[in-house]
Amino acid sequence: MTESKQRLTHIDATGEAHMVDVGEKVDTVRVAVAEGVIRMKPDTLTLILEGNAKKGDVIGTARLAGIMAAKQTANLIPLCHPLMLTKVSVEIEADHDLPGLRVTATAKLTGKTGVEMEALTAASIACLTIYDMAKAADKGMEIGGIRLLEKSGGKSGDWSRQR
Amino acid sequence: MTESKQRLTHIDATGEAHMVDVGEKVDTVRVAVAEGVIRMKPDTLTLILEGNAKKGDVIGTARLAGIMAAKQTANLIPLCHPLMLTKVSVEIEADHDLPGLRVTATAKLTGKTGVEMEALTAASIACLTIYDMAKAADKGMEIGGIRLLEKSGGKSGDWSRQR
Amino acid sequence: MTESKQRLTHIDATGEAHMVDVGEKVDTVRVAVAEGVIRMKPDTLTLILEGNAKKGDVIGTARLAGIMAAKQTANLIPLCHPLMLTKVSVEIEADHDLPGLRVTATAKLTGKTGVEMEALTAASIACLTIYDMAKAADKGMEIGGIRLLEKSGGKSGDWSRQR
Amino acid sequence: MTESKQRLTHIDATGEAHMVDVGEKVDTVRVAVAEGVIRMKPDTLTLILEGNAKKGDVIGTARLAGIMAAKQTANLIPLCHPLMLTKVSVEIEADHDLPGLRVTATAKLTGKTGVEMEALTAASIACLTIYDMAKAADKGMEIGGIRLLEKSGGKSGDWSRQR
Amino acid sequence: MTESKQRLTHIDATGEAHMVDVGEKVDTVRVAVAEGVIRMKPDTLTLILEGNAKKGDVIGTARLAGIMAAKQTANLIPLCHPLMLTKVSVEIEADHDLPGLRVTATAKLTGKTGVEMEALTAASIACLTIYDMAKAADKGMEIGGIRLLEKSGGKSGDWSRQR
Amino acid sequence: MTESKQRLTHIDATGEAHMVDVGEKVDTVRVAVAEGVIRMKPDTLTLILEGNAKKGDVIGTARLAGIMAAKQTANLIPLCHPLMLTKVSVEIEADHDLPGLRVTATAKLTGKTGVEMEALTAASIACLTIYDMAKAADKGMEIGGIRLLEKSGGKSGDWSRQR
Repeated sequence: MTESKQRLTHIDATGEAHMVDVGEKVDTVRVAVAEGVIRMKPDTLTLILEGNAKKGDVIGTARLAGIMAAKQTANLIPLCHPLMLTKVSVEIEADHDLPGLRVTATAKLTGKTGVEMEALTAASIACLTIYDMAKAADKGMEIGGIRLLEKSGGKSGDWSRQR
Repeated sequence: MTESKQRLTHIDATGEAHMVDVGEKVDTVRVAVAEGVIRMKPDTLTLILEGNAKKGDVIGTARLAGIMAAKQTANLIPLCHPLMLTKVSVEIEADHDLPGLRVTATAKLTGKTGVEMEALTAASIACLTIYDMAKAADKGMEIGGIRLLEKSGGKSGDWSRQR
Repeated sequence: MTESKQRLTHIDATGEAHMVDVGEKVDTVRVAVAEGVIRMKPDTLTLILEGNAKKGDVIGTARLAGIMAAKQTANLIPLCHPLMLTKVSVEIEADHDLPGLRVTATAKLTGKTGVEMEALTAASIACLTIYDMAKAADKGMEIGGIRLLEKSGGKSGDWSRQR
Repeated sequence: MTESKQRLTHIDATGEAHMVDVGEKVDTVRVAVAEGVIRMKPDTLTLILEGNAKKGDVIGTARLAGIMAAKQTANLIPLCHPLMLTKVSVEIEADHDLPGLRVTATAKLTGKTGVEMEALTAASIACLTIYDMAKAADKGMEIGGIRLLEKSGGKSGDWSRQR
Repeated sequence: MTESKQRLTHIDATGEAHMVDVGEKVDTVRVAVAEGVIRMKPDTLTLILEGNAKKGDVIGTARLAGIMAAKQTANLIPLCHPLMLTKVSVEIEADHDLPGLRVTATAKLTGKTGVEMEALTAASIACLTIYDMAKAADKGMEIGGIRLLEKSGGKSGDWSRQR
Repeated sequence: MTESKQRLTHIDATGEAHMVDVGEKVDTVRVAVAEGVIRMKPDTLTLILEGNAKKGDVIGTARLAGIMAAKQTANLIPLCHPLMLTKVSVEIEADHDLPGLRVTATAKLTGKTGVEMEALTAASIACLTIYDMAKAADKGMEIGGIRLLEKSGGKSGDWSRQR
């Protein structure tokens, strides 16, 4: 384990939580991609996809909720820096093997701090919105696999999940 | 599958998303308990727990973030009703078998609509906060098992996850 | 003009703005319906409707934005009371005579204060969202006709716009 | 119709709504001016202006509400980018020909994306605040003429409404 | 010191912060009055009052900021319950003995939990707004005396500051 | 009194409040440090510190509330510019001479406008959070001494409170 991995950056020398000073960091293009899934009964997936075939509202609503949530990240995660996202996109596709839906969120900015939390927050809230809209049919749905797929930009460099 | 399970309540007859009218529902005590986990490397868990031994900041910060996020649920989930939670609690404990942390969130109110989304949102944001605070050490952490454990109150009655 | 019409309720005896005390008002079912329109070039309307034919995103996004904005009314309008909407719906339909889109928003709650502002805010923000999504094609669009159509409930009784 | 007018920038190739990537845009000074009006009975206008003569509260409150709302634009309009306004001003003047009040809002920043939505949102919320404060006297007021007057800066260049 | 005074209600048996369960509390009318002052140079007070003589903007802006902040209390104070204020008022008067301005805020609701924090938050943010608007002239201003004057309603009964 | 001290920058020539145009200002590193205290009974301080000895929750919660509030400054103070803080820290220490707690907040950014209001808001909300968590034991606590200690950066230069 390297030195850089042996500390929690949000905890200072006295053990107190704080917002890391990113003032000295340079403005670079930073991109992060995260994903998450929501598992459900096959019938629930059918219900969502059939509804979607008509007007796309469960998936469309979840996608928008994810995009809007990305913009709220610094208000939700206590030590996140406020930042000006230049792009957020959320893709949702059916995965009959789960069975359920797979959400992929991308966040991007030119700035001093990474956007992993924005991508992860978008994926999480999109999944929660799907749960909300289908819960009358299936309370047992489960959200999982919320994880970073890749990030680029910044001093710590690029990172990709090994598969 | 029963009749009540065959529709998506947020989608109306024309296939459009809307906020369900809960005006006719009676005010009852409603409780929901949800959980989520975040899996990480054993070293990351050690780092968090050692930090916690001193000042408790990762776990304490995540717990507060979860509580505060529960109050933002209606701003995050597009079709959720605004409501006045009478209680929110978030418990976080280490689970060395994951290895990682397990978050349990409880939401409660006396009102016309259930609080499942508030409990699930609290659990999700608590997990995301842990990710944020430990990500410098371990970008590969994964959040999962976000699910409802039980709910009580309301017309649809009590529900518990079968284990 | 009756006595009740000759004062501005948000201005007190000293001429200062304040939030009216509604504590003595009774909880009744209150409903308000408001509308608004956005006028545009015929080609812009075609572009929106064709996009809509595929995935419904301009109209669907505007509808959700209106619903979510209704929940933010007390944060936007300084002297509005916070309240717990039990229902919000937003309908958007094409009107080729404008040409443009017509938004109708309905807000409902059981409470001490009316929901006119919530319905009007939903209609306004839905129109602004349409503007945002089509402005690359047509900056000259104009939003108008933001007005209350009817309200019911409360001490001041029912009201309908005379047509 | 020019090429630039034939697409809705918020709708991608698959027909889904997304937040446009502005990361490649250059930081330029961008200004937008928008207006809106609220029409009312002559007596209502008199009531507001007389109240205003004393303490200025209807007009002063509406002006502040508009300024504050401009800062919330990215939270209200789903696909708007968060941005750091360097200036917002809202002017409100009586127009006895309407009769009513005319709101002019200006938003400015140095950044990658235009501020039309911020100016339009400020004008809309200022009008809604006037409605709120005078609605006890006149529920029939109507908000209209919400439109962009001019914008400058950015790749698409300057634009002025033709009168 | 009585038993009821010997515990911190937001800290549970395990020493963790939580949101107190108020579900069993009865809905009663609850009122709280708080005050605060901002001390400044005599010249700064003159500047504010002269500005105020014209349009009232420093004091009027601060009063509105206080009212709006009261509605944000549950978003700012982590363990506060969300609640539906039925009234908020903020009064600001010059006190040449300070010299400075004295803010008095009143919050009221019918509900399960007290509104002390809403009144105190309103007073604090009103003072901060005055600071913001006059800081170009006087960075040395100091805010103090933020305290509860009285509260009524609820199980713990009425309370008044002894003078 | 110097020229720069003779105007209220938020009040324009017509006496109306507006958000100052900072577009022409240069991006510099700006830091502000503010403090505040909360005075309480000696027993209340003991209660907080003993609780703190176990899990640190009153002080830890107040510290986080202050950090999160700094990020909300532009939403609370009407004429504040939205900005992207690069650092916020809040320190809280016991002062047995008060007796009570002393909060010191630091805000930092590279930008066009100062961060005094962010530091002052963080200190204020941290104090209010302490009040909230200890008010069941001591309603008579008083918050005071909310003041700027020093600022650096920007055209107006460095400033320190003379002691």
